[in-house]
Amino acid sequence: MIDGSILIGADARQATTRFTTVNPATGESLTPSFSSADRDAVSAATALAQAAFPAYAATDLPTRAAFLEAIADNIVAIGDDLIVRAMAESGLPRARLEGERGRTVGQLKLFAQVVRQGDWLDATIDPALPDRTPLPRPDLRRINVPVGPVAVFGASNFPLAFSVAGGDTASALAAGCPVIVKGHPAHPGTGELVARAIAAAVASSGLPAGVFSYLPGDTNDLGGALVADPRVQAVGFTGSRGGGLALMRIAAERAQPIPVYAEMSSINPVIVFPAALAARGSEIAAGFVQSLTMGAGQFCTNPGLILALDSPELDAFVAEAGRLLSGTQPLTMLTPGIHASFDKGVEALATHDAVRTIARGCPSAGPNQAVGALFETDASHFLADRALGHEVFGSSSIIVRCRDLDELAQVIAGLEGQLTATLQLDAADEPAAATLIPVLAQRVGRILANGWPTGVEVCHAMVHGGPYPATSDGRTTSVGTLAIDRFLRPVAFQNLAPTLLPVAVRDGNPWDIARRVDGVREASAR
Amino acid sequence: MIDGSILIGADARQATTRFTTVNPATGESLTPSFSSADRDAVSAATALAQAAFPAYAATDLPTRAAFLEAIADNIVAIGDDLIVRAMAESGLPRARLEGERGRTVGQLKLFAQVVRQGDWLDATIDPALPDRTPLPRPDLRRINVPVGPVAVFGASNFPLAFSVAGGDTASALAAGCPVIVKGHPAHPGTGELVARAIAAAVASSGLPAGVFSYLPGDTNDLGGALVADPRVQAVGFTGSRGGGLALMRIAAERAQPIPVYAEMSSINPVIVFPAALAARGSEIAAGFVQSLTMGAGQFCTNPGLILALDSPELDAFVAEAGRLLSGTQPLTMLTPGIHASFDKGVEALATHDAVRTIARGCPSAGPNQAVGALFETDASHFLADRALGHEVFGSSSIIVRCRDLDELAQVIAGLEGQLTATLQLDAADEPAAATLIPVLAQRVGRILANGWPTGVEVCHAMVHGGPYPATSDGRTTSVGTLAIDRFLRPVAFQNLAPTLLPVAVRDGNPWDIARRVDGVREASAR
Repeated sequence: MIDGSILIGADARQATTRFTTVNPATGESLTPSFSSADRDAVSAATALAQAAFPAYAATDLPTRAAFLEAIADNIVAIGDDLIVRAMAESGLPRARLEGERGRTVGQLKLFAQVVRQGDWLDATIDPALPDRTPLPRPDLRRINVPVGPVAVFGASNFPLAFSVAGGDTASALAAGCPVIVKGHPAHPGTGELVARAIAAAVASSGLPAGVFSYLPGDTNDLGGALVADPRVQAVGFTGSRGGGLALMRIAAERAQPIPVYAEMSSINPVIVFPAALAARGSEIAAGFVQSLTMGAGQFCTNPGLILALDSPELDAFVAEAGRLLSGTQPLTMLTPGIHASFDKGVEALATHDAVRTIARGCPSAGPNQAVGALFETDASHFLADRALGHEVFGSSSIIVRCRDLDELAQVIAGLEGQLTATLQLDAADEPAAATLIPVLAQRVGRILANGWPTGVEVCHAMVHGGPYPATSDGRTTSVGTLAIDRFLRPVAFQNLAPTLLPVAVRDGNPWDIARRVDGVREASAR
Repeated sequence: MIDGSILIGADARQATTRFTTVNPATGESLTPSFSSADRDAVSAATALAQAAFPAYAATDLPTRAAFLEAIADNIVAIGDDLIVRAMAESGLPRARLEGERGRTVGQLKLFAQVVRQGDWLDATIDPALPDRTPLPRPDLRRINVPVGPVAVFGASNFPLAFSVAGGDTASALAAGCPVIVKGHPAHPGTGELVARAIAAAVASSGLPAGVFSYLPGDTNDLGGALVADPRVQAVGFTGSRGGGLALMRIAAERAQPIPVYAEMSSINPVIVFPAALAARGSEIAAGFVQSLTMGAGQFCTNPGLILALDSPELDAFVAEAGRLLSGTQPLTMLTPGIHASFDKGVEALATHDAVRTIARGCPSAGPNQAVGALFETDASHFLADRALGHEVFGSSSIIVRCRDLDELAQVIAGLEGQLTATLQLDAADEPAAATLIPVLAQRVGRILANGWPTGVEVCHAMVHGGPYPATSDGRTTSVGTLAIDRFLRPVAFQNLAPTLLPVAVRDGNPWDIARRVDGVREASAR
């Protein structure tokens, strides 16, 4: 059911202030209209979240895990209505959205496993040493506890996997934090369907209603009020740098500053080393153009920058990439606003004195379509004008010709923090790559070889993060199981009676989780 | 040797701008004078740190561990000169400083063990699944890497354990980060002796000189310039709330914001439950007064707030605590400034309409001595005036009478974030305590029973941290092995050739460390 409600826990409310969204593929308005949540709705949702927090934080591992699985099941149970609505609201094709639903559901189930397994508790015990001199050691036991209510901002480019029940929500709920989602105004119907699936899981799991609320809206004021609310203890955000910086500012200015996990912008440099370029330049060009134009290039990890050494092989690569790009079909972008920004960014590069346009894709045949764009410049110009290194969200990329490896290293040293760096290399390139990898590791969250940065695996070893301004907090990831750490903090318990201790650190390991005792892993740990 | 130098790596420099410090016990100036580091010194130190970073980050585990042990050995080798100088500069007694030296050295050695053991790397491997459908999974491997050069601000109250070679320095060096210490102006001679011990260990370990620099100085400008320097990637600080907030502001306003780990202020509530109060009120009073007045109360975890239910037993407790406190001898405080602040804070409580002075300690017999102070008020007044809950650094505490457990819970709910909460309880109090513990766990970093919060064990399970404003970042600790996490961030490696991978995540586990493979611990892990 989609009726434009705000969901404050189990309570569905309508607001008089409304907004609508459009189908970007047609430009037509979609029905129904949606409630625009106001500050009263924010207060109601955060108060309910705070009230629900102690009980939710105290859930045992199987209960919390089963709740995450119930959300997954409820999302699947929406059936094709979810896919159809998401297609209409995002312009994304069916196969992509079906895949994204699978990822969203898989992510919730993975976090259910993580919750059950219990490593996230980091249960640590230093037993008392009563006979130690000069002073005895007390009994000390430590676990991670959830930080409190978390505000999640859905992203436009993944209306399922990074939105209402996306990675931020899944990891915050897994940590034991109630979640208040600020719905993205571009896909409010999709958002509402998923929000109702979560609210139903809260109810069927016997959890307090405040564990989840959903605030649709199309104003910055709504997001600002949510981050400023004193009951909110952390923020998850995926979106533009401007949006992320605004939330960081609000969070820093609170009476109690709180962490903001904002995944913002990245141009994801790809370094094509000489031997690889010589051996398989046209294969690399094909992979590049495919990664660049897939989904209209609307990925955080889109390859927006190619670095290579000036050479006849690079000339051939540029020609081949241009030829392939010029044959790509335009694709509908997520929103008219995103499309307008893309066109503006492409226009700025196309008219830049130091930039040559290599190719554009096939002309647009409908509203809001991205026509791929490939540019080139040389390293000295790229180094001279930081604007050339700014993200153009969509299928636009710039090839930077470097004189030699030193100049290439200089370009890397001048880059802002990035989500990814990609190496296209053959065996003969490995010595050169080996010297660059430590430098890249200081600047990015993920280094990959002979692949493309788009496609972010949801697993234990993934880092979808990186130094500022790729994210607001380079110590974390927003994809993969490590994302749960963002919503936890450690608490130590000293000399507490067994019955007063958290179950996770009681003698006998009642939850059968991995623990460290005196710095050494317990034998019974899984 | 103490000659007032700035240490920029291996280079000892003198500045023309000088400062001196006093012996707080006598009020007399100490020789020599010390260089006041300026912005040029900051730039030189941070540039050298950045240059040293790649090589230091790449050290293998035994090399880095041996370096930490060499620092410890060099500190011991200074011998009694260190203790004598620290006594003169801090007014602290010999036994305390000898104990603190042991703790400092033990802390460095513990971090050496941590480095060797390798858990801090959080080595995680998700092997490729080439046959997975619809898409194969790439090979993904993740480790933690150091964030970069770290600025450390020494604290006045632990001239060894929280200063030049204290917990922040030890954990940052353990993580692989070069350290630049801004020396505390109250103990510059002690600081220089320890700084030279570290610099000597850098040299004898064959590490680049920029791994450690030492900037003495007595201006806020020095600290501000250090935090603002673009090469600095994180900050460790222990000190006043005003100082911590100023550094947080500077860090947030940088072009690249960086994390600040500031341990600032806490009044460390102690809840005395009814059965415990009835059974052993005078024993609790004795423990309380001892914890309150030890070291002139100059501990972050000093018990500045007692909560108990109004009763004849509380009257008796108050009388006994007052009797004991009035017999305590005054102790020299660390600096004239700290002493003046203490007297001002005590005076504000003594003249507050809603506050009764229970007792003061024996009168002062020399300069800068803290005369203990014990106050009482009731919960309604405490709730009405937040100023009554502000830290008075030193041996001052306030007893708050609560009507009943509900009112006591209300006081707790109104408290700011704290480092610790202490429960004095007997078996009959456990049900009441059990309802309060989850509430306390949201507000503090450590909950302890039937002990006193002073005395912070350096171990794996310790949390010396807590929600803002106890610290700037409640997700961390500044004492114990977990402190290393503050200076690390995760990086993922996808499909890298074996020789290009970090050794920690290569096949065959060459470093023999604990790793997770596909979410499960490797059998070979220690």
